[in-house]
Amino acid sequence: MAITGTTDAGAGPIRYGMVGGGQGAFIGGVHRIAARIDGEFTLVAGALSSDPARAAASAAALGIAAERSYASFADMAVAEAAREDGIEVVSIVTPNHMHYPAAAAFLNAGIHVICDKPLTATLEDARKLSDLAKASGRLFILTHNYTGYPMIRQARAMVADGLLGDLRLVQAEYAQDWLTEDVESTGSKQAEWRTDPAKTGVGGATGDIGTHAYNLARFVTGLELDMLAADLQAFVPGRRVDDNAHVMLRFQGGARGMLWASQVAVGHENGLKLRVYGTKGGIEWSQEDPNYLWFTPFGQPRQRITRGGAGSGPAAARMSRIPPGHPEGYLEGFANIYAEAARAIRAARTGAVDPEVIYPSVTDGLEGVAFVAACVESSRANASWVKLGL
Amino acid sequence: MAITGTTDAGAGPIRYGMVGGGQGAFIGGVHRIAARIDGEFTLVAGALSSDPARAAASAAALGIAAERSYASFADMAVAEAAREDGIEVVSIVTPNHMHYPAAAAFLNAGIHVICDKPLTATLEDARKLSDLAKASGRLFILTHNYTGYPMIRQARAMVADGLLGDLRLVQAEYAQDWLTEDVESTGSKQAEWRTDPAKTGVGGATGDIGTHAYNLARFVTGLELDMLAADLQAFVPGRRVDDNAHVMLRFQGGARGMLWASQVAVGHENGLKLRVYGTKGGIEWSQEDPNYLWFTPFGQPRQRITRGGAGSGPAAARMSRIPPGHPEGYLEGFANIYAEAARAIRAARTGAVDPEVIYPSVTDGLEGVAFVAACVESSRANASWVKLGL
Amino acid sequence: MAITGTTDAGAGPIRYGMVGGGQGAFIGGVHRIAARIDGEFTLVAGALSSDPARAAASAAALGIAAERSYASFADMAVAEAAREDGIEVVSIVTPNHMHYPAAAAFLNAGIHVICDKPLTATLEDARKLSDLAKASGRLFILTHNYTGYPMIRQARAMVADGLLGDLRLVQAEYAQDWLTEDVESTGSKQAEWRTDPAKTGVGGATGDIGTHAYNLARFVTGLELDMLAADLQAFVPGRRVDDNAHVMLRFQGGARGMLWASQVAVGHENGLKLRVYGTKGGIEWSQEDPNYLWFTPFGQPRQRITRGGAGSGPAAARMSRIPPGHPEGYLEGFANIYAEAARAIRAARTGAVDPEVIYPSVTDGLEGVAFVAACVESSRANASWVKLGL
Amino acid sequence: MAITGTTDAGAGPIRYGMVGGGQGAFIGGVHRIAARIDGEFTLVAGALSSDPARAAASAAALGIAAERSYASFADMAVAEAAREDGIEVVSIVTPNHMHYPAAAAFLNAGIHVICDKPLTATLEDARKLSDLAKASGRLFILTHNYTGYPMIRQARAMVADGLLGDLRLVQAEYAQDWLTEDVESTGSKQAEWRTDPAKTGVGGATGDIGTHAYNLARFVTGLELDMLAADLQAFVPGRRVDDNAHVMLRFQGGARGMLWASQVAVGHENGLKLRVYGTKGGIEWSQEDPNYLWFTPFGQPRQRITRGGAGSGPAAARMSRIPPGHPEGYLEGFANIYAEAARAIRAARTGAVDPEVIYPSVTDGLEGVAFVAACVESSRANASWVKLGL
Repeated sequence: MAITGTTDAGAGPIRYGMVGGGQGAFIGGVHRIAARIDGEFTLVAGALSSDPARAAASAAALGIAAERSYASFADMAVAEAAREDGIEVVSIVTPNHMHYPAAAAFLNAGIHVICDKPLTATLEDARKLSDLAKASGRLFILTHNYTGYPMIRQARAMVADGLLGDLRLVQAEYAQDWLTEDVESTGSKQAEWRTDPAKTGVGGATGDIGTHAYNLARFVTGLELDMLAADLQAFVPGRRVDDNAHVMLRFQGGARGMLWASQVAVGHENGLKLRVYGTKGGIEWSQEDPNYLWFTPFGQPRQRITRGGAGSGPAAARMSRIPPGHPEGYLEGFANIYAEAARAIRAARTGAVDPEVIYPSVTDGLEGVAFVAACVESSRANASWVKLGL
Repeated sequence: MAITGTTDAGAGPIRYGMVGGGQGAFIGGVHRIAARIDGEFTLVAGALSSDPARAAASAAALGIAAERSYASFADMAVAEAAREDGIEVVSIVTPNHMHYPAAAAFLNAGIHVICDKPLTATLEDARKLSDLAKASGRLFILTHNYTGYPMIRQARAMVADGLLGDLRLVQAEYAQDWLTEDVESTGSKQAEWRTDPAKTGVGGATGDIGTHAYNLARFVTGLELDMLAADLQAFVPGRRVDDNAHVMLRFQGGARGMLWASQVAVGHENGLKLRVYGTKGGIEWSQEDPNYLWFTPFGQPRQRITRGGAGSGPAAARMSRIPPGHPEGYLEGFANIYAEAARAIRAARTGAVDPEVIYPSVTDGLEGVAFVAACVESSRANASWVKLGL
Repeated sequence: MAITGTTDAGAGPIRYGMVGGGQGAFIGGVHRIAARIDGEFTLVAGALSSDPARAAASAAALGIAAERSYASFADMAVAEAAREDGIEVVSIVTPNHMHYPAAAAFLNAGIHVICDKPLTATLEDARKLSDLAKASGRLFILTHNYTGYPMIRQARAMVADGLLGDLRLVQAEYAQDWLTEDVESTGSKQAEWRTDPAKTGVGGATGDIGTHAYNLARFVTGLELDMLAADLQAFVPGRRVDDNAHVMLRFQGGARGMLWASQVAVGHENGLKLRVYGTKGGIEWSQEDPNYLWFTPFGQPRQRITRGGAGSGPAAARMSRIPPGHPEGYLEGFANIYAEAARAIRAARTGAVDPEVIYPSVTDGLEGVAFVAACVESSRANASWVKLGL
Repeated sequence: MAITGTTDAGAGPIRYGMVGGGQGAFIGGVHRIAARIDGEFTLVAGALSSDPARAAASAAALGIAAERSYASFADMAVAEAAREDGIEVVSIVTPNHMHYPAAAAFLNAGIHVICDKPLTATLEDARKLSDLAKASGRLFILTHNYTGYPMIRQARAMVADGLLGDLRLVQAEYAQDWLTEDVESTGSKQAEWRTDPAKTGVGGATGDIGTHAYNLARFVTGLELDMLAADLQAFVPGRRVDDNAHVMLRFQGGARGMLWASQVAVGHENGLKLRVYGTKGGIEWSQEDPNYLWFTPFGQPRQRITRGGAGSGPAAARMSRIPPGHPEGYLEGFANIYAEAARAIRAARTGAVDPEVIYPSVTDGLEGVAFVAACVESSRANASWVKLGL
């Protein structure tokens, strides 16, 4: 029961700001909880909304001093960079099309960036942001939060340790049903921007959840894609982006896979599942029951490895806060990305790199946007095989 | 608790014979149990093996009179047709390449046929057999046994009754792991013929289990395929047929699907699963837990409908023998095909057709063989879209 | 995949008769299917109902010759014993209070007995029948059918092999909900006799299903009871026997347990579950998902052992008919009792005993009736500790 | 998807202190995370250890100012009460025997108390503390954290709304295996104090986890105990408190129940389960999968209600932070107790009481300690029926 994840931020919390995430938003609140859980961060500045009144009210409600509630992210980047007690890192939680300009402003101001996924709404923006982030010398952490789940870390370690042998198959899926009907026309703010290509990008389900499934598959297996063939569909009449994606995958080295992302699969809430099979073993993990990793060594019974329990190793333990049998969930997984970010930021203060720290990077973000673009391109070409345009 | 499935064969059992299924075979024993469960059939003749000694020994062990143990199916068809007390129906349980000649012999002799799946090893044979069966006026029952599971009947009825609304998505899979290694080279008789294209046909996993998944999808949904795109693979070096198949499906009317069949997915025994989603609901069923059907009406909690329990209707009840909570399994599902066959045969004696009887037909068999052929053709053309060559 | 259970009765089926089980009965049909599955038995005589018309009609429907359909079990015992081709064994499937007189008649006539459980309706009858059966030299097989499930055999073997270490705890339960309301007053024939003390005995849920849970606990663990304390209740107003039983168990040697039997637990169909814990391991099994046995060796991950799969040994294999992943169910488990009976009967023809054959005996039956009596006695004494009156 | 639980503490966090919870402790860290998640609390003072060096180091690591790190809780209570910026509430996370003196000191100083469970190590202390707390006019919140799970709130609301009808049965269990061996003799600090009657009280498993199961049963059902009969056992030789408890329950009004608490049940981590059955429905909940509540309305299929999904109402929603399908866990449930505490504290500033706030009180704590005492008394009297000594 060596739980190493709890930190309690003895060294004093890291000052951070937020762009987006004002009242009524969903993911901003999640980021703030994630930042709070370990006490590693303190929120001191924000450009929380493009609506000035909402921005101010949101800031006040969050205890941000009025003078550090900014009307625009551009102002915020400049002003915070100039302060002695300015933020070290900014969390960007806007709709997708604003990721690039906001992130660019902070990177250019020398401020680390934590950014929600997908990286950007367009592949062009993604390439520019990737180049900029790499040139900036600043940290760029993409919140592909599912990579923060302890049992996903465990799975990745088991693959790396060869427990599955040579990988053959990857079956990934992310099924939801909240877009089964035309809710974007009936007042759902979340649905509105997530189905508007100008805000969300060319992919619908592909971008919103397909990228998560794809990122998770890569994260656990370490495989790189060779090419894909995609059959996208918008089942709801009038919908401007796909709400269902069927994708066949060919990885470099010969492994193959399937990926299914759907927002019209009635009965699913956040059904992200990953299955990986190799010559020596197979694993299975489901986001809705994240404390279990099912592992079958070939020729042996299926095992249920629990987070922190027997068979669960150090890769999971450093991402855990409590003993096995007490379930951790989505927020803790999300917080683990922030915990990794905190470690990276503290190390970066002296120019160091903590070799144990793992987080999704701007490169992963570019890969995700390229995945969406490739899916759309393939589907338009009648599901022809397409390589990623990295 | 209206259980209507048990028949106890008051009218006297139907005389049947068997081709194949001698000592050491697997599926022949299953057919015999299926035929016995309701007491509807009695085994009186056989050509149980191409090896005469094994044929005779097998017949004796099964209580078949010596003079009705035949050296060849051809002899058997002729001799039984000539007997007053000859068989009414024959069960053909040989390897796939023998299905056509054996079935043809009995149809030509005026004897009904129950035949294991897939229909034949080649599409050419399948077409010929389909034509012959239709012309013969005899019954042809293909043992796609999974269609006999009560909750599959329930699912089919729910789709037909509109509980799922307009269908959008079909996700089918059949995952096994018994061919993870090169067992065909190390003495497994089952593996040997099932990976030999001359005996099994052009498809490996595709033919052996992919056809089951495909048939089940069609049976439950009533959808007809428009086209498919398949990516087949033989992961085990030297294997002559596919051991893994990834298939994208487009159905007539606009529904889409994916199908995965694998014999190298470590951790799976007979993981046949079907999920269907429509505008109003979704269902999920797994062969390894066959007494449950999961149903989500859109906007309501997920329900676990049990065989014979609340929410389970007459379509399931007529295929059930015991009350809910007492699990039925694979053999009962298989026996239900035989029970339907018995009803059809008794009706056919007077030229009647029992309108409630449902069983997979020679047309379904042709469809299955065409599915395998299309998968192979598509995969050879780099996963191009292909229509079935019916 | 060494499946050894299928027998196909090469040696010719055993002639058997049936007492009870006429049209409209439930358990008689189950016995007949169980007898048919392996082809080991053929039904040739019966006293199927105390109503002569129903007896005759039932016999005709089952293909029993008219002269071997008897008006009473007494006549049947005498007549069949006198026939050259008389039955070797009789199946008694009447309500409980008739078990004793019927069984006595056949044992006295020198005919083996297969009898439904509980053994008798009263402890006095049970003692007499136990003495008679032992003195008779005939076989007496009690259909505590759950002991026929392959994974129960596996569990028993694992306990015997010491994989659980010294046993500490047994948690057994059998939960149903079909008597949640007063259905015995509204026309349910099954409910009527099962809640009538004159027919069912002093225990309601205790006798009908508690005996199954208790028998299963003993069968798997090999433990013998020291004493019990029971708190019985009839929740439905007017019900004459208990519909819920809470029982604490103390076994000889120090292990302890709890047993819960209920017929008013809404949401349960046939929720028979057994959990056993020792110093080295724990196991868990559920009748509604009988192909899985969950095993945790202390300090290791929980394993899901499947019937016939990795970790499943010969004790399960000799009770199996088909490969792992193809579920077997209640009827196959029931048939396994008949399969064991067939082996025992064939051995008994030459005075031999097959050492591998395991079945619940008249002694187990006496133990079960004594368990019910002790529960009732304890509950009347305000849940005092009571020893079994064997 | 009306998620109302997230607060983000706009009104400014509540100052709190902690007694116990220094480096190496488990539950103190959990309390701190729970206090941080919503940003409602800020930790400003502590008496974190009876070892002064450890106390100081722990305080420093947590960012507590040196002058507010106290050598004793007595000093802390006095000093903080005297400060203008003193703590409003203290969290007491020591071993059980220190709960009473510590809580008394703060209540006497006019400071609200959040206290870990069980309330005290002895029934005498529990009575005194209960009286003191009621007389003090201060808030007393006991962290029976499982009452904070959203689906437990949902279950409680469903019972209160009559969806289960009149309650008949309560089956509660809490199974662990971490004390399967004599770890208290081999260096486990947690095991040492939890098996030492001087620190933990007279109950072992009974007090540590049995109280949780008992509290949860009462919380969900609203039932009050009439009497219990308990059979306790210490299976591990030399253990000074029970490690397994079997308890039969009789509630006022006629409902009955069983409770099982074990720390030697191999294969269980934190297996807290609650099942409740009434005349109209049944529910089932498991702590290890806390986002699901299984509900069967009598005569309908079993439903899986997910946290925030269809069928989940406002009682769950006010305890939730994120949408359905994104699992919440133990820490969020714990944080919900702190969130309720925060609401109660803010209301108490003006003498108000928030009618929606629900938390386990000192009365619940007294009930729990009385439960342990009654179990021990009953067990010593050979499982006689005992009433709670409230």
